Amino acid sequence: MRQVASSTIRRLSLYLQFVEEVEREGKATVSSRELGERGGATPAQVRKDLSFFGSFGKRGIGYPAALLAARLHDILGLRRRHRVVLVGAGRIGSALASYPGFAARGFEIAGIYDADPEKVGRSLDGHVVRSSDRLEADLAAQPADIAVIGTPAVAAQEVADRLVRAGVRALLNFAPLKLVVPAEVAVSNVNMALELEVLTFALSRWRG
Amino acid sequence: MRQVASSTIRRLSLYLQFVEEVEREGKATVSSRELGERGGATPAQVRKDLSFFGSFGKRGIGYPAALLAARLHDILGLRRRHRVVLVGAGRIGSALASYPGFAARGFEIAGIYDADPEKVGRSLDGHVVRSSDRLEADLAAQPADIAVIGTPAVAAQEVADRLVRAGVRALLNFAPLKLVVPAEVAVSNVNMALELEVLTFALSRWRG
Repeated sequence: MRQVASSTIRRLSLYLQFVEEVEREGKATVSSRELGERGGATPAQVRKDLSFFGSFGKRGIGYPAALLAARLHDILGLRRRHRVVLVGAGRIGSALASYPGFAARGFEIAGIYDADPEKVGRSLDGHVVRSSDRLEADLAAQPADIAVIGTPAVAAQEVADRLVRAGVRALLNFAPLKLVVPAEVAVSNVNMALELEVLTFALSRWRG
Repeated sequence: MRQVASSTIRRLSLYLQFVEEVEREGKATVSSRELGERGGATPAQVRKDLSFFGSFGKRGIGYPAALLAARLHDILGLRRRHRVVLVGAGRIGSALASYPGFAARGFEIAGIYDADPEKVGRSLDGHVVRSSDRLEADLAAQPADIAVIGTPAVAAQEVADRLVRAGVRALLNFAPLKLVVPAEVAVSNVNMALELEVLTFALSRWRG
């Protein structure tokens, strides 16, 4: 399989979110122009993005919405269910556990963990918070595909190391640091403070 | 002023989040090695990142934490208060209005807007939701620096166009689309579904 650029995957994800809206509205087809507007690409780029994974549009007619949605689900690996562990039962863990897009995309919370004895045993959106000491044993018994790291930054790298050793191959990191992981481990980052500071930096430059 | 790469700004933001933790722990200095671990950079890269904005570390001693925090606040444009309007009083607007890092970074919510008459007039974290029809008049009376777009995707580009025409120069976009804006407008994106799909895509590649 050839390498696929992360920018391509991000566009495919935007296309999918659009096609799903189109389907909900009951429309049968979607054009490469409409997809391009959504993903920030030219129609030619859209056709290239999609043809990379096999041909399934018709010139002048567009893409059948249902088929395109199904193919994008395939391409993005969303067909199967994904077992997810959350490490850190704070504000981020709670938000994610109740995020509606989570279950809808086939993500299943296998366990929520925290190092704080005060939090262990409490219930979070129907899941009893477990001690992070049990992470390795639980993952050995039932592997997870994805781990969400919502710990304080000071603990996040150690947690990531433990998760990777336990076989987790994809991390969604909310802690404010850049995780160091082996090349075969995928990391996505969500950091609201950072996104805001990219904006304030830009604003301060314009003011000089 | 020379151009500063977005990757540099992201590292500076991670350095700042780290220095603030160090300060809370009562430590007086921080080394370029520690900063580098946090920002995913070598000590040499850290020194380069910071020297770009003037020299303020001492070889062998490290950076004084309080001074470095103050300088990073300056560099990232966090010294002054930023007026922020939220457009879209849904789940995202609510989450952001109650996000503790928001007020702490000097962001002040100037108004929350929604197009849905059901939501207009309700109170969200102490702010009465206003009709988005009033956006232009309100921004003419009291300009805002930053707008947060938390509308459905189908409305987001039009909202962005209106905000830009009304003088807003920085957008934090939560809607699942790539906004088209003039070059002088800064955009940051937060899209949880997209970050998750980057991971599931990677997982599906390894399985072949």
